[in-house]
Amino acid sequence: MKQQLSVGIDIGGTNTAFGLVDHQGNVIAHGSIPTQNQEKIEDFVSDLSHEIKASLQSIPEESEIIGIGIGAPNGNYYSGTIEYAPNLRWKGVINLAQLFQQHFNCPAWVTNDANAAAMGEMIYGSARNMKNFIMITLGTGLGSGFVVNGELVYGNDGFAGEMGHVIVEKNGRLCGCGRLGCLETYCSAPGIANTARELLQQSKINSLLREIPINEIGSKEVSLAAAQGDEIALEVFEKTGEILGLALANAVALTSPQAIFLFGGPTQAGDILFQPIRKHFEANLLEIFKNKIQILPSGLPTGNAAIVGASALVWNNLKINP
Amino acid sequence: MKQQLSVGIDIGGTNTAFGLVDHQGNVIAHGSIPTQNQEKIEDFVSDLSHEIKASLQSIPEESEIIGIGIGAPNGNYYSGTIEYAPNLRWKGVINLAQLFQQHFNCPAWVTNDANAAAMGEMIYGSARNMKNFIMITLGTGLGSGFVVNGELVYGNDGFAGEMGHVIVEKNGRLCGCGRLGCLETYCSAPGIANTARELLQQSKINSLLREIPINEIGSKEVSLAAAQGDEIALEVFEKTGEILGLALANAVALTSPQAIFLFGGPTQAGDILFQPIRKHFEANLLEIFKNKIQILPSGLPTGNAAIVGASALVWNNLKINP
Repeated sequence: MKQQLSVGIDIGGTNTAFGLVDHQGNVIAHGSIPTQNQEKIEDFVSDLSHEIKASLQSIPEESEIIGIGIGAPNGNYYSGTIEYAPNLRWKGVINLAQLFQQHFNCPAWVTNDANAAAMGEMIYGSARNMKNFIMITLGTGLGSGFVVNGELVYGNDGFAGEMGHVIVEKNGRLCGCGRLGCLETYCSAPGIANTARELLQQSKINSLLREIPINEIGSKEVSLAAAQGDEIALEVFEKTGEILGLALANAVALTSPQAIFLFGGPTQAGDILFQPIRKHFEANLLEIFKNKIQILPSGLPTGNAAIVGASALVWNNLKINP
Repeated sequence: MKQQLSVGIDIGGTNTAFGLVDHQGNVIAHGSIPTQNQEKIEDFVSDLSHEIKASLQSIPEESEIIGIGIGAPNGNYYSGTIEYAPNLRWKGVINLAQLFQQHFNCPAWVTNDANAAAMGEMIYGSARNMKNFIMITLGTGLGSGFVVNGELVYGNDGFAGEMGHVIVEKNGRLCGCGRLGCLETYCSAPGIANTARELLQQSKINSLLREIPINEIGSKEVSLAAAQGDEIALEVFEKTGEILGLALANAVALTSPQAIFLFGGPTQAGDILFQPIRKHFEANLLEIFKNKIQILPSGLPTGNAAIVGASALVWNNLKINP
């Protein structure tokens, strides 16, 4: 019998990575192509499909692709489309699942990257036995995926889980979505860096961060400074925890999850990030939810998480339990 | 064949109402007893069961009870219990479903009143063809029930849907839950009345509400004054809409519902309440959700909604489609 593999594809603004993934979440082969070289989406899908097939040929064990899972900005699970993705050159509504099905004799599914990460956590990660959890992805933006009764919440139109765009501050920071005060303007990686810039400008306190040109400060630099006990850097994480902790407590009041997983670059800061989040989370929880809900780092492999997450769509939809 | 009926029970702080309800949501017989007369919960359930059985006997058509649905404060669907309900005299964890099963030869289910209302809306009301919607109940408190993928969201512990306890204002009004700034302190019936009292004290503007002793102002008085064009009263609903509209827009970002239903006394104000909510809701929605999601009055019958909602648990759990 041939080895059954799912394809996981992660379409980013710059690069598109793919992997051939087995039932257990092992990436058997992988590759990538630039996302924006082809003017026509058909050419992009054709080139990517060519790469994936070449990758399949390279595997020693005889293998077959049984399905394709795609994580993409503004990916819509119901329609298999990406819709008006601001960071991609292909405009309007694109039938991505259909395009891939034309190249492979198997089904394809599309969702956004945070939902794909949630699916990955449920199928291969630390949420394998959980029916109700929240996945938060921290990166350029702040994404989220909600699992309720063992199913990913796509909502009526396929766009559920936009926790990054919960408004947490009236007349707050300008968000890429055009509104003010969205959660991701404070708690994404650039949001954390912006808080550092604000605090540096507001105070005269000494800080390791003052040795870095202000526009080169990223969330990583803030976390390195905080690890050395830098007062300003620690205050940045305190403020981040205050805002994210409250937003998570409010989300818990609605969906009562068993756990919340955090994923992405800023989580590398470890307790420096998690501790203030947990503190403000517990302080803002309704009594019945206190000391019940864990906030944990994702159990997905750091490098391949997006691919692995997208590939999980396949096992989930074909109802194959790893 | 006997007529099949479900029992809907609504346990309130003062009275407990029950109804015998058919597949279509018609209340065939009903009654009530005071909630707090019996010191022991066993005696309360016994007396109530006696009343329900007498009610069944009074129906001309030969009928049988096939299940019991109970809406109660702090009702937990998973365990069939009510847990530490602040407004009831029976303390701790009470196995309510089990107690009723001892009196009737049929299954029983428990949930809180807002979840029961959501279930009623889905089984008999205006959400009959919806898989994703939010139910908001406005009364002494603010309750909510979330339906996702056609299922009520109970969450990991059975307590999901506590939207009244989303914190919307840092260091805001003191809530019955002991925290500050919960949504229900602003948008429940007493919350609306409190906003009126605040505005009356802050301004010197003439108002019909000044003719009422300040402690006797309720949400109904405010809505009657607003219907006559009273400036202060209209401002109260504007502020209520501002807070509730934003909270609903934030909830939409998480669950992407098809519609939101509002239920309870304050909704009698009609457009005076709905219009400012809709205005602020749309203004705060992420672009992809704009002009998609209706905010509607509940389709449940005003007088019997709680009973009818609780009875819907029976048809839903026995998978009988009306």
